[in-house]
Amino acid sequence: MSTVFAPRAAVVGAGLMGGSVALALRAQGWHVTGSDLDESRAQRGHELGAFDALGADDSAEITFVCTPVLSVADMAKAALAGNPQGIVTDIGSVKGPICAALDHPRFVGGHPMAGSELEGIDGASATMFEGRTWVLTPTASTDPAAYSRLHGVVSSLGATVISIEPSRHDELVAMVSHVPHLTAATLMDLASTSANENATLLRLAAGGFRDMTRIAAGHSAIWLDICTQNRSAIVSVLDQLIGGLERMRTTVADDDRAGLRKILDRARLARINLPIGAPPPEDLGEVRVPIPDRPGFIAEITTLASELGVNIYDVEMTHSTEGDEGVLVMVVGADVIDLFRGGLMARKFRPTANRLA
Amino acid sequence: MSTVFAPRAAVVGAGLMGGSVALALRAQGWHVTGSDLDESRAQRGHELGAFDALGADDSAEITFVCTPVLSVADMAKAALAGNPQGIVTDIGSVKGPICAALDHPRFVGGHPMAGSELEGIDGASATMFEGRTWVLTPTASTDPAAYSRLHGVVSSLGATVISIEPSRHDELVAMVSHVPHLTAATLMDLASTSANENATLLRLAAGGFRDMTRIAAGHSAIWLDICTQNRSAIVSVLDQLIGGLERMRTTVADDDRAGLRKILDRARLARINLPIGAPPPEDLGEVRVPIPDRPGFIAEITTLASELGVNIYDVEMTHSTEGDEGVLVMVVGADVIDLFRGGLMARKFRPTANRLA
Repeated sequence: MSTVFAPRAAVVGAGLMGGSVALALRAQGWHVTGSDLDESRAQRGHELGAFDALGADDSAEITFVCTPVLSVADMAKAALAGNPQGIVTDIGSVKGPICAALDHPRFVGGHPMAGSELEGIDGASATMFEGRTWVLTPTASTDPAAYSRLHGVVSSLGATVISIEPSRHDELVAMVSHVPHLTAATLMDLASTSANENATLLRLAAGGFRDMTRIAAGHSAIWLDICTQNRSAIVSVLDQLIGGLERMRTTVADDDRAGLRKILDRARLARINLPIGAPPPEDLGEVRVPIPDRPGFIAEITTLASELGVNIYDVEMTHSTEGDEGVLVMVVGADVIDLFRGGLMARKFRPTANRLA
Repeated sequence: MSTVFAPRAAVVGAGLMGGSVALALRAQGWHVTGSDLDESRAQRGHELGAFDALGADDSAEITFVCTPVLSVADMAKAALAGNPQGIVTDIGSVKGPICAALDHPRFVGGHPMAGSELEGIDGASATMFEGRTWVLTPTASTDPAAYSRLHGVVSSLGATVISIEPSRHDELVAMVSHVPHLTAATLMDLASTSANENATLLRLAAGGFRDMTRIAAGHSAIWLDICTQNRSAIVSVLDQLIGGLERMRTTVADDDRAGLRKILDRARLARINLPIGAPPPEDLGEVRVPIPDRPGFIAEITTLASELGVNIYDVEMTHSTEGDEGVLVMVVGADVIDLFRGGLMARKFRPTANRLA
């Protein structure tokens, strides 16, 4: 299936996500070695065509740690120790504790915003990441070359990369993922408890309720770990949601139609404008930044791009043959090159920019 | 398009739902006359093939009032007054106030649990009700023949009919529709407000968040009326939800993994078991009830069926040629005929039952 020249990856953890990463990588021509504490799961991955080989691969260029979030740090440390040159990343849903435990130039935290109602490696799909957002969380320690390579590989799987600080990531996913999940579960539980008194209730559940509670069908195990690891952000967002619902209750109880309309219209507009997967722009620009003599610039620049809403389609380190100075070359939408340039200048970088077309 | 022998219906209100009712009826061979306070909307319905004719139809066998919920009672009263024999029904999302205002043998409240993200009559679809639940809310005043005929017609549009008391309907839809909508709007509003500080947030919104907030994209106008009409039930369910989220907050804050698992597993099981549209049973039974000499029996029997989880696929009134006594014949799943019979006997009816096969 693979040639001797294929780039090599390792996937640790043969579940839904690990299997999907492996299948997606193999579709791009990678040689993928898979492992799992449960050997039968790894074997199943081999049968399904996710893994070329089973076991460890000390020469893997990139190791993807796809184990439950509580074990990621240990697994990633082991991968870094066992492989003297490779990049190590993960796909855990909470990034702060993992990145704090792995302050290493070759580790870049990751979190693909993708999933499935299917379970286990049998539900894995090579196309799971197409059109999805894949968060990377570089830190001040991150090696720019490692970040750049990982960015390129993840993008090649069809994902759009955005970079955020680990702790900020955790606050944001508490809002758009963790608390929505807990809310869906709470609603579903409430409805089913009431339904014990009346079999009719759940038969009234039409499309909106089904949509809203769909995520509550997921297995609980992953959520226990997420709640443990991201406790403070989740509690904070739950408090905000409870506050919002209390305001909603007052608005309805007072029959305050103007106030209710204001909230509903604002929410409607936001929902309609929810960004969908970034399409490849027809019009691209290139922003070039001389690499400064300071650590952590890759994290600084890429998280700045995310804050500005600038999507980095490609990132590459070039090294001048004439001097010591390298250049970071980033491909972004032509419509945002000035915005990005302005932000970079404000942070004391010396960018240049031009359209590619 | 229609023959002189086609049954005649009237649809008042040429919006998404009125248009869909009209299209679905026409697909079943009905002659449909449509009207709207805004004549251009009715005209559009004619262009789209929803209406055979425009205006009123004093000889319509059934008039469907499909106007905003606050105007249903007046429109239905006008339809009853203008048409000496026809059945009048509606599709409003709140039933208590409407049914209280329309204590009339020929009025049967209705609420199809269907909808669309599309808006207006241009979004109407002849298949909108296929596989959906259509609630009817007969009361003690309801004429059994009117109920039986409406049940049959609504079923012919592909919907499964369940019957509930008007006030109970309102409590149930507060739980499975109104509060979920307000919660989706609150979540979306919260996320978008936070997003003003960070453009990244909404780009992280993956499938679960999208599913959960989809209903918040709907127009606010209908929800203002719903909240006004169903205020007390909505406030009560919002209180229950806030209570549930407060318990969830405590569970997460205490890192009570056993408690969290219990809630999530219960919700997961309930979500997985959420009934989908009732498939036509391969095995049917018939329950026959001599029509008792007491008013309101049609509401009593059909809501008893709903409470027992018994789906009535067909209902018909037969009148003996030999005596005065008529019989109510109901087709239900063969597996529930004994259950239904037991319930009916407990309520002093005299049912007989047999399998159809």
